[in-house]
This record gives sequence, C-alpha cells and structure tokens, in this order.
Amino acid sequence: MNRQEIISQIKTKASFLCIGLDPDIQKIPSHLLKGEEPLFAFNKAIIDATHDLCVAYKPNLAFYESCGLEGWKAFEKTVRYIREKDPTQFIIADAKRGDIGNTAEMYARSFYESLPIDAVTLAPYMGKDSVQPFLSYPGKWAILLALTSNRGSADFQMLEDAQGERLFEKVLRRSSDWGDEFSMMYVVGATQGSLLQDVRKLVPRHFLLVPGVGTQGGSLKEVARYAMNDDCGLLVNASRQILYASKEEEFAQAARQEAMKLQQEMQTYLKALWG
Amino acid sequence: MNRQEIISQIKTKASFLCIGLDPDIQKIPSHLLKGEEPLFAFNKAIIDATHDLCVAYKPNLAFYESCGLEGWKAFEKTVRYIREKDPTQFIIADAKRGDIGNTAEMYARSFYESLPIDAVTLAPYMGKDSVQPFLSYPGKWAILLALTSNRGSADFQMLEDAQGERLFEKVLRRSSDWGDEFSMMYVVGATQGSLLQDVRKLVPRHFLLVPGVGTQGGSLKEVARYAMNDDCGLLVNASRQILYASKEEEFAQAARQEAMKLQQEMQTYLKALWG
Repeated sequence: MNRQEIISQIKTKASFLCIGLDPDIQKIPSHLLKGEEPLFAFNKAIIDATHDLCVAYKPNLAFYESCGLEGWKAFEKTVRYIREKDPTQFIIADAKRGDIGNTAEMYARSFYESLPIDAVTLAPYMGKDSVQPFLSYPGKWAILLALTSNRGSADFQMLEDAQGERLFEKVLRRSSDWGDEFSMMYVVGATQGSLLQDVRKLVPRHFLLVPGVGTQGGSLKEVARYAMNDDCGLLVNASRQILYASKEEEFAQAARQEAMKLQQEMQTYLKALWG
Repeated sequence: MNRQEIISQIKTKASFLCIGLDPDIQKIPSHLLKGEEPLFAFNKAIIDATHDLCVAYKPNLAFYESCGLEGWKAFEKTVRYIREKDPTQFIIADAKRGDIGNTAEMYARSFYESLPIDAVTLAPYMGKDSVQPFLSYPGKWAILLALTSNRGSADFQMLEDAQGERLFEKVLRRSSDWGDEFSMMYVVGATQGSLLQDVRKLVPRHFLLVPGVGTQGGSLKEVARYAMNDDCGLLVNASRQILYASKEEEFAQAARQEAMKLQQEMQTYLKALWG
C-alpha cells in the first residue's frame, strides 16, 4: 500500500486510528476460551466491529509467539482475515526485528512475500544493513523505532553526543538517508508529547506510528497538535483501551465504542487540517 | 543452567563452541528436501554429529519464522531434541527481541516456560524494562546485544557522547546494573577484535557470546587473546562454516570436521588458561 493510498483512506474514514491486535489469553473474555482458536476468534470479533473506524491494524508478534504454534497460526489467520474483510487496511507486523543482512532478508521475505503484510517495525541498534532488506519491496514499509513510549526509553534513546544530539535524533537523521517518506515510517511514543516537535524538525514528511495513547497515558490532542503534517502523517495506535473495554460477551461492541471515541476526536483534528 | 555448570561443561568438553542452527532451505542438502520436515532433519543430523564438540546451540529464530508455521514447528522440535540428546547443552534462542515490559514478559514466558531454552538474545534500544522480565527466572539468561559483527554496527553502536563513551560501552555499563554475571551475557562481534579489550574493561566477569568467527572473518585467536577471562568467559559461535561445509549426503560428517577444527583450536587456548 503506497503513501497516497494511506492518505486517501485517512480522508475517507476520517480516521488515523491504528488498532493494536494484542490478544492476551489472560485478558480476553472467558467465554471465548471454551471455543476453538480463542485468539483468532477474539481478533475476528474486534476486526468485524471496528474496521470502518480505523485505517490500520497492528498485531504485536509477541502476543502470538508466546502461545507457540497455536499463536503463530492465529497470527497468520488474523492477517489474512484483515485483508479479506477490508482490503484497504494497512497491516503492520509489530515485530521489532533487527538482525544482520542475510537474516533480515529472511524476515523481509517471510513478512512481505508469504503474508499480506504492508509494514514491519524494526529496531535500529544494528544499523543500516538490518533495515535495508525491508526497503526493497515496492509498496512495503519499514517502521523504525525512534522514540518509544516505555520508561526504559530514556536509558539509551535520550543519550546525547558532544553536539547535544540525542540518540533518537541520530536514528531519525541517519536513517532518513536509507529510505524516504514513501518507504519508511517511525515509531514515536506519544507519552513524550513535547519531543514530537523535535522529531518533526528532522522528519517533517514521514508518517509516524504513535503508540502510547490511552492506557499508556499519551494525549491524542497533543500528538495531533505537534506531530500532524499536511498529509496528516500520523497513525495513532490504541490497543488495550479498545481490546479490553469489556470482558463480557458484548466486548466487541464495547471495543467499537472506544474506537469510535478516538475516531471522532481524530475527525475534528482532520477537519481542522483539511476542512 | 547456571554459570558454574556452563564452565564445567567447557572444561569437560575442552570447548567453548556454540553452533548456530540457522538452517536455510536454499542451502541445505537437496536430498533432505524430498523428505518430511527438512529443517528439523537437517538440524538433527548436525546435532547428532557435533554435540560432543560444542557446549551450546543457538537457533536463530529468523530462519524458522521465515518458513511460517512449518518453521515454528521445526524450531520447537529442534530445541526439544537438543535437550533430549544432550541435556548439558546451553540452548540460546537468538531472537534479538526488545519490547516494552508487558510484551517482554510474554516473550520471557514463551521462551523460558514453554520451551527448554536457557537464554534469549535481546536488543537494548528500549532500555531496562525491555530486558528485566528475562532476568527474573533462576538459571535463565538474558544475552544483550552490545557490539554486533555486521557493517551497520558502526551506524549507532560506535557513537560517542561528550565524554567519549561509545553507545556499546554505555549499554555494557548501564545494563551491568540490571543483571550480573550470573544472569546476563553480551553479544560482542568478533570481527572487531581490538574492541574486545574495551569490552573487557567494563565487563570483566561476564560471559560473552561472540559471533562473526569463520565466514564473517573474525579470528578465534584474537578473541581468545583479548576476551578470555579466568573462567573462559566465552561462547564463540560458528554457523555457516559448520552447517554448509558440504552440500552432499555426508554433510553432517563434514560439519563435524569443521566443528572439530574449532574445538581443537579452542582446546589449545583452554590448556594455556587452565593447564
């Protein structure tokens, strides 16, 4: 899915919402556990109830891999189901991979060729050759971790060099030579609102994938204010707030309500941007 | 497996060899492709032929995940087979994971509770809370990427702060508060021999997992000279050099020859150390 198609979906749906499909077997409604394939059943219900309100889904691989074979099956099935249900969705495998060239190539092949996945999140620590294999597929995206929303992000991402440039800024600056706004995006944690301006100085045109809104405490308003560009340039992710809005049988309806709240707030920001 | 048990195995086998189980479907002997479960069949033959010469096996998850469900099955089967065949082997899941706290916990559970895995490789970019969940299992290990052996390692790992400290040194220094030499190891690429001394200044007691010997050009001699400590403190990994020593039916025998070359060289260094 290319940049123009993403922007066009944001316009059509008046939403830049990405829903994180992170099904935790200890949190999903208990009635699902009695059936077959509870993870997939949970995701399917969420997707059915929300796909008109969001432009992207982001399954986090950890939640699937932690269930072994069954989890991996649920991941593949979920990805294929999204594509089938709503072909306009941008599908992000939140994998946070980062490995040497030949290994990175295998990952790229696996995500982009065997599955209908549009983008993969990647860790920058191993540098250019760990990212490059993900940039050679037309219409596919590498989404690089720049500034994450967890507490530990301060341990290394905020470290400064002699010129006062912080590591996350270095990651943004250096990697913007590797790919452009048509092939790369960045993960920028919303809990660090004031830093969004610093990010935009370095990557004014790129899309940002912003986690940390909702349960993690980030403010959607601040993100829209400081990080939106002329093309919107944002995919804001929410996971737990939507997925676990209710543990009862009507969980999918409750999830829809939460997604709609976010979509409606987004709509006002998009209206201010595009009229 | 605790630190003393690892050292004791190194003594018993006169080896600090780790074999990287990275089966590439495009490189394994073609006769295996006709049978069932070619990845597992390949690994099994390699394990049978080499387990008395090495103290650790390190399957790289990418090689399995890139084959989807079948790959995941081969990974689980391989790990269980190693434990069954030779319970003294240290099993490293080379996963290079790094994710926020609750996600990291899921990964830790998956690797340490569902499978007989002793250690997981982790990326440091997201900081302490992405590593900590891996440190709370007695007898299990977190192996943190410090200095990798690929070209891109220079992009960020070598960046200096105002005091001249490089990022990989910061990673070593900060993280050595998170765990100690009984729960943490570091990945330190052997292709950067002269840097091993700098690493040892910061983490004199920790075990180092050293990739990059063999196909990637690192010298075992240099590694032993600059990075060995009183307890050996090294696991040196070789993958392609051993796995693809031959593409013929006797590939496992050829793999054994290569492993033995390395083991015999290691034996001389251990003799110099321990007599």
